Amino acid sequence: MEQRNAGNPIRCKAAVSKAPGQPLEMEEVEVAPPRAHEVRLKIICTSLCHTDITFWRMKDFPGMFPSVLGHEAVGVVESVGDHVQEVAVGDTVVPVFLAQCGECPDCLSPRSNICSALPYRPGGMPRDGTTRFSLAATGEPVHGFLCVSSFAEYTVVDVAHVVKLPAGPELALPPEKACLLSCGVATGVGAAWKVAAVESGSTVAVFGLGAVGLAVAQGSRMRGAKRIIGIDLNPGKFEIGTPTGKKLGVTDFVNPNDIGDKNVSEVIKEMTGGAGADYCFECIGLVSVMAEAFKSSRTGWGKTVVLGVDGSAAPVSVPSFDLMRGRSVVGSLFGGIKPKDDIPVLAHKCLDKELELDDFVTHQMGFHEINRAFDLLTQGKCLRCIIWMDGACSEENGCS
Amino acid sequence: MEQRNAGNPIRCKAAVSKAPGQPLEMEEVEVAPPRAHEVRLKIICTSLCHTDITFWRMKDFPGMFPSVLGHEAVGVVESVGDHVQEVAVGDTVVPVFLAQCGECPDCLSPRSNICSALPYRPGGMPRDGTTRFSLAATGEPVHGFLCVSSFAEYTVVDVAHVVKLPAGPELALPPEKACLLSCGVATGVGAAWKVAAVESGSTVAVFGLGAVGLAVAQGSRMRGAKRIIGIDLNPGKFEIGTPTGKKLGVTDFVNPNDIGDKNVSEVIKEMTGGAGADYCFECIGLVSVMAEAFKSSRTGWGKTVVLGVDGSAAPVSVPSFDLMRGRSVVGSLFGGIKPKDDIPVLAHKCLDKELELDDFVTHQMGFHEINRAFDLLTQGKCLRCIIWMDGACSEENGCS
Ligand SMILES: NC(=O)c1ccc[n+]([C@@H]2O[C@H](COP(=O)([O-])OP(=O)(O)OC[C@H]3O[C@@H](n4cnc5c(N)ncnc54)[C@H](O)[C@@H]3O)[C@@H](O)[C@H]2O)c1
Ligand SMILES: NC(=O)c1ccc[n+]([C@@H]2O[C@H](COP(=O)([O-])OP(=O)(O)OC[C@H]3O[C@@H](n4cnc5c(N)ncnc54)[C@H](O)[C@@H]3O)[C@@H](O)[C@H]2O)c1
Ligand SMILES: [Zn+2]
Ligand SMILES: [Zn+2]
Ligand SMILES: [Zn+2]
Ligand SMILES: [Zn+2]
Repeated sequence: MEQRNAGNPIRCKAAVSKAPGQPLEMEEVEVAPPRAHEVRLKIICTSLCHTDITFWRMKDFPGMFPSVLGHEAVGVVESVGDHVQEVAVGDTVVPVFLAQCGECPDCLSPRSNICSALPYRPGGMPRDGTTRFSLAATGEPVHGFLCVSSFAEYTVVDVAHVVKLPAGPELALPPEKACLLSCGVATGVGAAWKVAAVESGSTVAVFGLGAVGLAVAQGSRMRGAKRIIGIDLNPGKFEIGTPTGKKLGVTDFVNPNDIGDKNVSEVIKEMTGGAGADYCFECIGLVSVMAEAFKSSRTGWGKTVVLGVDGSAAPVSVPSFDLMRGRSVVGSLFGGIKPKDDIPVLAHKCLDKELELDDFVTHQMGFHEINRAFDLLTQGKCLRCIIWMDGACSEENGCS
Repeated sequence: MEQRNAGNPIRCKAAVSKAPGQPLEMEEVEVAPPRAHEVRLKIICTSLCHTDITFWRMKDFPGMFPSVLGHEAVGVVESVGDHVQEVAVGDTVVPVFLAQCGECPDCLSPRSNICSALPYRPGGMPRDGTTRFSLAATGEPVHGFLCVSSFAEYTVVDVAHVVKLPAGPELALPPEKACLLSCGVATGVGAAWKVAAVESGSTVAVFGLGAVGLAVAQGSRMRGAKRIIGIDLNPGKFEIGTPTGKKLGVTDFVNPNDIGDKNVSEVIKEMTGGAGADYCFECIGLVSVMAEAFKSSRTGWGKTVVLGVDGSAAPVSVPSFDLMRGRSVVGSLFGGIKPKDDIPVLAHKCLDKELELDDFVTHQMGFHEINRAFDLLTQGKCLRCIIWMDGACSEENGCS
């Protein structure tokens, strides 16, 4: 790749979020060159995660407007700032919302994946809090999002937030698969493997059967869970034989709308001989469901893993007597995945077909159709919709 | 020991709790003979744990009156019911509020100490829910408490709730030490070793410096914690050189009354360079403090262990965003200790002076003075007060 823009701003298209819940607008933006420790990426493809939806709808801080959302993507390094050794122009990389500086106590510990050297700064770059985006027409700054901002043809990311993919002809993971490792699917698999460490023979309850929840199901099945109960309001997620649900490991379904006066926790206890599930995962983002997941967990060792992001930042309510009977609750960003250590491992597992991600890509489309991806996800009609930055609309892939 | 009462009721003294928060009344009671799987014990000594206080004050169910409270004790088997093989008349045993049947999924798993075959039945024996106590004068039944009911000269306990102590002249742990292993001290040590698994170099915050909290401190120190921050409202718990506080491992003190407008979690973060504690233990029994303990825990891996019993059974409020940054909350009964497996191990550690319990016994007195023990504990003047069932008041031990 030629480096003709290095050091200069790039003008390109970005899908800008201008007001809470309003369709993104395709704008010409200027993407500043990378500063020290930063890299500028040409995005190959991006997908849409529910966290984008949550922040896009948020009327108050940390919701910010105008902004370039998007944080699940794969890209190619277009240019690098000073002090960047780890990646070079032309490398294919996965940008990630979590940093891994490699040197702080958290990065050095196997127990944490929350880099403490580069804490999250809403809307800006992790080292100085500023943005690299502005509207080409007016010069008005446009906020970034989750240190990735992938709903743009080019973006600038801190080097601590990029992961180099295995390279070489036999090691080239298709971009749409690599993209899934950038957030949702990696989060779900990581949560099952690293945060819960699901054991063979376990009973698992997964609240919310989006890409995150179904990745938990698949990760749990791979670890030998004998029963995987999926809970979702959307009956479309239950269909047997579709890519969702059963194919990804879910053995039993519960629709909260179909259980009369009962609570989901009561139903799960009935299904498990009164005990409750060994592991419960909240993959929706509602504190009320987090509390219900906790109640569905078994005394003695039941573990509830909270992955969903509740935009209200409300507290989860955990009855202390239930807690004392040996239950635990743990939250996780990115499923305990340390980006630079673990994404390459997951990528190799994909290449080896040990980890099958095909079913997570339910739709593909061109960048100009991004608002349709928002519709599909909010309506529960897709798992992951891959948005190709230079892609034309492809009818056979569900784009119409 | 002769077995002259075997099969017959025994008349003896019990300190009966007749109304919430009212002094216990010494009554002549009849203690029925043990039924199948039960043993009748002659209590040697008992102590008072804050859980007795909590239930004694409770106006509504599971507070029950009249009842024989007490659940930290050591006794000698007086007689046994049918099918009891594990202990024999004359054995010295520790009765425990948690069962270990040895056969249920929980007892068979190393992950749980909450026997699922014999769940707790407030006021009664675990297998049939009935009581073995009645008032001698009127025949009125008197409820038991936590399957132990040790504020009586004799009590009946399920064999799943007794632990045989190491026997033999060199293995005789003094009763007042054995008594400490029956609840509070074992809970604290177990929580540090088994539930949290505190590592060398850790920073630990202990909320509440009663026997449970100080046993957490001592257990954490033994595991190499480098900093142990003790939080208590009672400045008497801070004194350096007394048996409390520093001697048991506490390195820093925080009195919530002495920190102005700040919250304890803010002070703990300041003390730890902004990070928070690796492990936080709630050893008081207030959901508000449980929430504060959680806030005091570190992102990435901070673990909050809830040991305190909040009589209101209110929920703990856990902000979901804080949870997601890698924090966890776990509750525990008896510090994860499996009674029959772990108490003998702790007893051997006491005999080997690896575990030093002398400082936990701050007072000793005769049974007739039991209400003074309630006063001492509610006023925060004792850690554990040993009540000798046949003991005369002993002035040098603090009884006056
Ligand atoms: N912790 C992390 O690092 C991390 C990473 C990615 C996503 N997330 C969060 O995980 C959650 C799931 O993300 P996703 O992309 O899979 O979302 P998604 O929209 O694809 O899936 C959510 C599912 O939940 C179901 N649902 C909604 N309300 C429900 C209810 N009350 N009861 C039962 N089911 C209900 C929906 O029908 C849908 O199937 C979101 O909150 C997202 O923000 C967290
Ligand atoms: N989980 C279990 O299995 C288990 C076992 C034993 C005891 N417990 C519970 O553990 C708790 C402690 O028991 P204990 O016998 O050590 O009690 P204790 O009364 O000896 O100690 C409690 C301490 O907390 C302090 N305290 C009270 N309110 C406070 C506040 N707001 N802030 C700071 N400090 C405060 C008191 O001054 C006292 O030092 C109780 O809730 C008890 O019921 C639980
Ligand atoms: Zn770091
Ligand atoms: Zn995401
Ligand atoms: Zn059992
Ligand atoms: Zn106790």
